[in-house]
Amino acid sequence: MAAHSSNLSRIGLAGLAVMGQNLALNIAEKGFPISVYNRTTSKVDETVKRAKREGNLPLFGFHDPESFVNSIQKPRVIIMLVKAGAPVDQTINTLSVYLEKGDCIIDGGNEWYENTERREKAMAELGLLYLGMGVSGGEEGARHGPSLMPGGSFEAYKNIEDIVLKVAAQVLDSGPCVTYIGKGGSGNFVKMVHNGIEYGDMQLIAEAYDVLKSVGKLSNEELHHVFSEWNKGELLSFLIEITADIYGIKDDKGDGYLVDKVLDKTGMKGTGKWTVQQAADLSVAAPTIASSLDARFLSGLKEERVEAAKIFKAGGLGDILTDQVVNKERLIDDVRQALYGSKICSYAQGMNLIRAKSIEKGWDLKLGELARIWKGGCIIRAVFLDRIKQAYDRNPDLANLLVDPEFAKEMIERQSAWRRVVCLAINLGISTPGMSASLAYFDTYRRARLPANLVQAQRDYFGAHTYERTDIRGAFHTKWFKIAKGSKI
Amino acid sequence: MAAHSSNLSRIGLAGLAVMGQNLALNIAEKGFPISVYNRTTSKVDETVKRAKREGNLPLFGFHDPESFVNSIQKPRVIIMLVKAGAPVDQTINTLSVYLEKGDCIIDGGNEWYENTERREKAMAELGLLYLGMGVSGGEEGARHGPSLMPGGSFEAYKNIEDIVLKVAAQVLDSGPCVTYIGKGGSGNFVKMVHNGIEYGDMQLIAEAYDVLKSVGKLSNEELHHVFSEWNKGELLSFLIEITADIYGIKDDKGDGYLVDKVLDKTGMKGTGKWTVQQAADLSVAAPTIASSLDARFLSGLKEERVEAAKIFKAGGLGDILTDQVVNKERLIDDVRQALYGSKICSYAQGMNLIRAKSIEKGWDLKLGELARIWKGGCIIRAVFLDRIKQAYDRNPDLANLLVDPEFAKEMIERQSAWRRVVCLAINLGISTPGMSASLAYFDTYRRARLPANLVQAQRDYFGAHTYERTDIRGAFHTKWFKIAKGSKI
Repeated sequence: MAAHSSNLSRIGLAGLAVMGQNLALNIAEKGFPISVYNRTTSKVDETVKRAKREGNLPLFGFHDPESFVNSIQKPRVIIMLVKAGAPVDQTINTLSVYLEKGDCIIDGGNEWYENTERREKAMAELGLLYLGMGVSGGEEGARHGPSLMPGGSFEAYKNIEDIVLKVAAQVLDSGPCVTYIGKGGSGNFVKMVHNGIEYGDMQLIAEAYDVLKSVGKLSNEELHHVFSEWNKGELLSFLIEITADIYGIKDDKGDGYLVDKVLDKTGMKGTGKWTVQQAADLSVAAPTIASSLDARFLSGLKEERVEAAKIFKAGGLGDILTDQVVNKERLIDDVRQALYGSKICSYAQGMNLIRAKSIEKGWDLKLGELARIWKGGCIIRAVFLDRIKQAYDRNPDLANLLVDPEFAKEMIERQSAWRRVVCLAINLGISTPGMSASLAYFDTYRRARLPANLVQAQRDYFGAHTYERTDIRGAFHTKWFKIAKGSKI
Repeated sequence: MAAHSSNLSRIGLAGLAVMGQNLALNIAEKGFPISVYNRTTSKVDETVKRAKREGNLPLFGFHDPESFVNSIQKPRVIIMLVKAGAPVDQTINTLSVYLEKGDCIIDGGNEWYENTERREKAMAELGLLYLGMGVSGGEEGARHGPSLMPGGSFEAYKNIEDIVLKVAAQVLDSGPCVTYIGKGGSGNFVKMVHNGIEYGDMQLIAEAYDVLKSVGKLSNEELHHVFSEWNKGELLSFLIEITADIYGIKDDKGDGYLVDKVLDKTGMKGTGKWTVQQAADLSVAAPTIASSLDARFLSGLKEERVEAAKIFKAGGLGDILTDQVVNKERLIDDVRQALYGSKICSYAQGMNLIRAKSIEKGWDLKLGELARIWKGGCIIRAVFLDRIKQAYDRNPDLANLLVDPEFAKEMIERQSAWRRVVCLAINLGISTPGMSASLAYFDTYRRARLPANLVQAQRDYFGAHTYERTDIRGAFHTKWFKIAKGSKI
């Protein structure tokens, strides 16, 4: 089956669903001969045919794992692109039988970082190297240049550095969208937070869409125009671009635009959930990301929502409470600013989550470098990420993106518009959970004195949890109950 | 050491920190002779002394585990009140050596429910019974009547039913605040969500305090008066009562009121975090509870907040943006309504979280019955819980508390005031994360059509995740990229 007998491949790839096929073709196209394998062999033949069709690329298919492994030059490197969880373990078992000391397996899936750490240890006992490498960019990215987040064995990374530097997306002023992330499961963890941020971006864009459509009564043509304009400025990004595209696409099964026919139920695959759970574990507030997850959960309750809408409409509470006249131009500009301000908060949360984990695990992650490799290839790629990179270049120990001088200035400029949008939505009875959670995050973070003193007093009252004081050091406990019930003010 | 030689105790209790001491004294006071044990024996003597002082109660102390166990009548029942995690396992190991088939151990701590399920299985192999029993009410509740949430072995529950029915808080029209929750770790799980709801209640009260104090400029005397008044109406509850108390307590170390000297940093012990993580796991939106956890996290960043406040103040953004004149009476009334509306949302989230877990685990939990046993004894006890009980009595399959006819009516009556409060806070640059998250939950839940269609279109655009349509059944995929880049609208 192998088309090359004496010449061995530089690398192998196992798991030929669309992502795997596309990444293999990308690697071959960059001039690295690649062997491919899949349990269902028809996928192998399909990939070989695509390699031929897409430019006679040096890609070689194998129907059995042994000849696949033997077709790769030593030390062998094999990327797996199979479903996270048990299929990864199965693939490792299948391949590792034929591997030799010094060979390396790379998991390119959205794997839970602890699974990668477990496997890295198990592989090390066999003398094998292991990497967990986040791959972002969807099918298009995999084929033409993804953002790659490899973490684990540094030695293994060095073995593939020449490949990933060429395979990753290339950004003009900041190089290939790949870097060695760090030890252990750090590559998977960073990819997980990337996806959480992606959830947040998508939710914020959906809210902007909602306000413009429901309050501003913008048509799809107008939305297409507005988002296309936005994509020329500070919001320039892949997600804004594809959103502009989406508004423009007509329904091929009926009248009007396709977006209006899409059911308002959002699916999910787990990385957003993990991000929210990790934030809670690490005591990091990530309300924008959490609100995007909740929005997906509530979107799934379509039938309940339809029933609830009836009940509250009958009670006089419609979808949009008033038909108040709005200034469209001003609304569009306000929404743009609300979206941008909220986005800064969301990225601040994601970055702080990564830092908290890095400290816990001793990964020594470089936040600015992460912003750099997200500038291209991945779903959240945006001009905005260069600003984040610059903020961390200015101050690698920045406590929060919000207090970077540049971002702080932008927040101050945008906060009035942002407040107008959230209040308008609230008064009209629609919800902007992501934008309002972001605003609450901003206003909480910049508040020297919060009402948390009352909560701590309550905890000391009923649970003797003690409290600190503003003026004297130490832990204090007061017998609130006895004092309160014994005396009158 | 034992004061009774021939007569054995009805029950034993191990772990004599304040909660354990108080629960033991409560049991003794209800007429059940009790043996007590603690590793640090001074605690045993302390408890014995208290039993004498507090009315010659039938409580017997033991300094070694063997004679402790042997002092209890068979089948033996021993309640542990030790720290969750490893100390529970240690206590079980210490005691189980001396236990016999049919004896029962009860964990009264805030334990992670899966630990209880693991231990129940391990105990069953030894022929021992096991219960995980949530105990709420703090020190006072433990002493004079807590809310008890026992889950696990039904046989074990039957062995202690006579005791817990008397030991639990008694509510006039609805009986003792205890019921057999369900199998496995259900008692711990329900207690965990109870605590999550408690986090939400405390945060919402703190926000009400913040708005009244920061916007309404209410003094502590006025706050004391307002909360005392509130505690006569629909908000009547333990937490409102103690909050009123707190405002009235003078600082014994200086001038003014103590609450103003308490540092605005809130601690936490884990159950709130677990609640948020479980909500994510079960695909249940619980934004009010999540916002209370985030508020605690952000409260902990005191130094960062002080710095951020300086930066944004220098940029023209103070704590309170304007000195606008507010109508105090109206503000107080609005805040009361905002608090009540938010509270309904928070309980709706907690109840739905419990139901989702009950379905997953086959626990068959009765939500109305849970509301009933929370009416007294526990930290969230409130007249409001009777309304929840009634809602589930009317319809045990209620999809969400919000659509119960009574609650729906209340929400409609209160929503205008609620919107006014949240927008006022937003416009003044302070945050009400819990109230605004609750409002967003309400407005999202009662919305027949959400902008989730856009998110799903985006997911299909970059990840081929497919989408459903509003008009035709099935899963659809569109080549958005090809269409968009090939044609202009």
